[in-house]
Amino acid sequence: MYKIAVIPGDGVGKEVMDAALHILSGLDLDFEYEFAEAGDECAEKTGDPLPDETLEVIRNSDACLFGAAGETAADVIVKLRRELDLFVNLRPVRSLPGVGGLFSGLDFVIVRENTEDLYVGLEEYTGDGAVAKRVITRRACKRICKFAFDYAVDEGFERVAAVHKANVLKKTDGIFREEFYKVARNYPGIKAEDFYVDAMAMYLIKKPREFEVIVTTNMFGDILSDEAAALVGGLGVAPSANIGKKHGIFEPVHGSAPKIAGKNIANPTAMILSTTLMLKHLKKKKEATLIEKALKKTLKKGIKTPDIGGKHTTTQVAQAIRDELIEE
Amino acid sequence: MYKIAVIPGDGVGKEVMDAALHILSGLDLDFEYEFAEAGDECAEKTGDPLPDETLEVIRNSDACLFGAAGETAADVIVKLRRELDLFVNLRPVRSLPGVGGLFSGLDFVIVRENTEDLYVGLEEYTGDGAVAKRVITRRACKRICKFAFDYAVDEGFERVAAVHKANVLKKTDGIFREEFYKVARNYPGIKAEDFYVDAMAMYLIKKPREFEVIVTTNMFGDILSDEAAALVGGLGVAPSANIGKKHGIFEPVHGSAPKIAGKNIANPTAMILSTTLMLKHLKKKKEATLIEKALKKTLKKGIKTPDIGGKHTTTQVAQAIRDELIEE
Ligand SMILES: CC(C)[C@H](C(=O)O)[C@@H](O)C(=O)O
Ligand SMILES: CC(C)[C@H](C(=O)O)[C@@H](O)C(=O)O
Repeated sequence: MYKIAVIPGDGVGKEVMDAALHILSGLDLDFEYEFAEAGDECAEKTGDPLPDETLEVIRNSDACLFGAAGETAADVIVKLRRELDLFVNLRPVRSLPGVGGLFSGLDFVIVRENTEDLYVGLEEYTGDGAVAKRVITRRACKRICKFAFDYAVDEGFERVAAVHKANVLKKTDGIFREEFYKVARNYPGIKAEDFYVDAMAMYLIKKPREFEVIVTTNMFGDILSDEAAALVGGLGVAPSANIGKKHGIFEPVHGSAPKIAGKNIANPTAMILSTTLMLKHLKKKKEATLIEKALKKTLKKGIKTPDIGGKHTTTQVAQAIRDELIEE
Repeated sequence: MYKIAVIPGDGVGKEVMDAALHILSGLDLDFEYEFAEAGDECAEKTGDPLPDETLEVIRNSDACLFGAAGETAADVIVKLRRELDLFVNLRPVRSLPGVGGLFSGLDFVIVRENTEDLYVGLEEYTGDGAVAKRVITRRACKRICKFAFDYAVDEGFERVAAVHKANVLKKTDGIFREEFYKVARNYPGIKAEDFYVDAMAMYLIKKPREFEVIVTTNMFGDILSDEAAALVGGLGVAPSANIGKKHGIFEPVHGSAPKIAGKNIANPTAMILSTTLMLKHLKKKKEATLIEKALKKTLKKGIKTPDIGGKHTTTQVAQAIRDELIEE
């Protein structure tokens, strides 16, 4: 029996969460769901976008599904990542059929450090402006690089690329690069390379097939993973996993999308793929694969939301995927 | 009579500089060139990648053409930008014929702040790592935004988009966004919008035609401008201008490319377009247009370097462009 915390959050978060749960209900899973609140609406009601009770629900769960938060997204998700020490942000970039990606056949993953860098929240006003601190520790560099190499081994990837800006950030990113190559020595079967972040921003477009696992610091990972998502169809299909030693939060990369919220047209794909990441994390690989297959079949049939050229609603897409599960 | 400082630098820097000067020699220009050294080779010879004499040559010039520097690039170009207060880094993104860009008909520009942010060089080791300071001042935000809007007006653009990460960097990027909208008020004819940097990394691929002038802080500008360059063919064709109140340094976005240096195959386009940015800066718009036209004709004829699918050498491309100038 697994306890799953469920935080639909704001805007389309609720709609895509409904869709994802509907699909999960089509599988025989020993899950007990506990719902909790976070985000803008929660802040309006309770005065806090991330109440202690919500944190407790997540702490007491085996995994958490998270929809999206609105304006308060940074206060919710960045805090969760740091509080629960979810040091890995895993962002797979995979081509799907019929989603209008620029490239087909892409299959790589961005492993983003998730607890430090400019996200530590150390900012101060100065005379005529402000200063933010970019904090990098050897410990965090080492563990994220180790995760990246272990992931490469587990998934059968053969190369890991570190991304940094050590020519300008000689000390902070110098450390990141150093730790990367130190870790790499323990994985002689994996090719280790490093790239400047600006160069990588270009290579993702010019030669994305040359990458398998990309590991980088927090802010660069934020930017590069959105860029990479665009290559395979956009935010509507980009899932992510925030993983720590004890906890895991699985969320679409997209936000609450207020412009389309309430219209039943949000693309549930990113949320659904996020649940497959959760299933894999809970060692339920078979169930994850079932959902992936049903999703692909549904997309191939052209049953999809307007953002990727379809005419179907969120609930129609979810139902179609659930039906495919049963037909298996 | 204009004094032009010329710094070929390292690797392909020399080759593309030769090409650019050869083309300039085909026009009737009142230029006096003064050569100076900077970069890796210079550091080996003199112990300093950017000797005082070089700085003096640039200070005494009306404009400076810069090729590329190798490993020492950051020490050379970042120092020059800060020492000479070249607060604007102007990076036009324009589709060219026959260079294999992902999109045709693109014409926008990235205006990158060029003196602060994580580029201030304030980094320190701490117990288990290091901390870098991201410095943002109102003064620098204001002047770069003002430049962006003035540029929009001058070039007939109708919208300016600010890019930031104010949800996470609430103070530093909060200031940038605030100053952006303050400046915008003085340009009621120009549409002002703002975007998160991660969203922009996606939009550049999903809907690049919606942008005209993009203004952003230093590091985000570094990353986004390389990404944007990839949309229109890559670094081989991406020019840039570093502009301040008194000085201007014009350089290709690419580096010294040690792997292809000395082979006479470097694409001179980025350097040549950088000279056209210099010509425009010196109010020689007619000459700039002549070179642009000759370049386009040459590309259309298929006379181009291998990086963009051609078979010609750097010198052959330069000669072809120079010949086109004469035929005008
Ligand atoms: C909402 C925001 C704080 C967040 C981030 O920057 O990490 C988001 O963009 C993401 O990538 O999950
Ligand atoms: C060489 C490097 C320091 C430089 C930068 O980061 O500004 C380069 O990438 C550029 O964009 O001009």
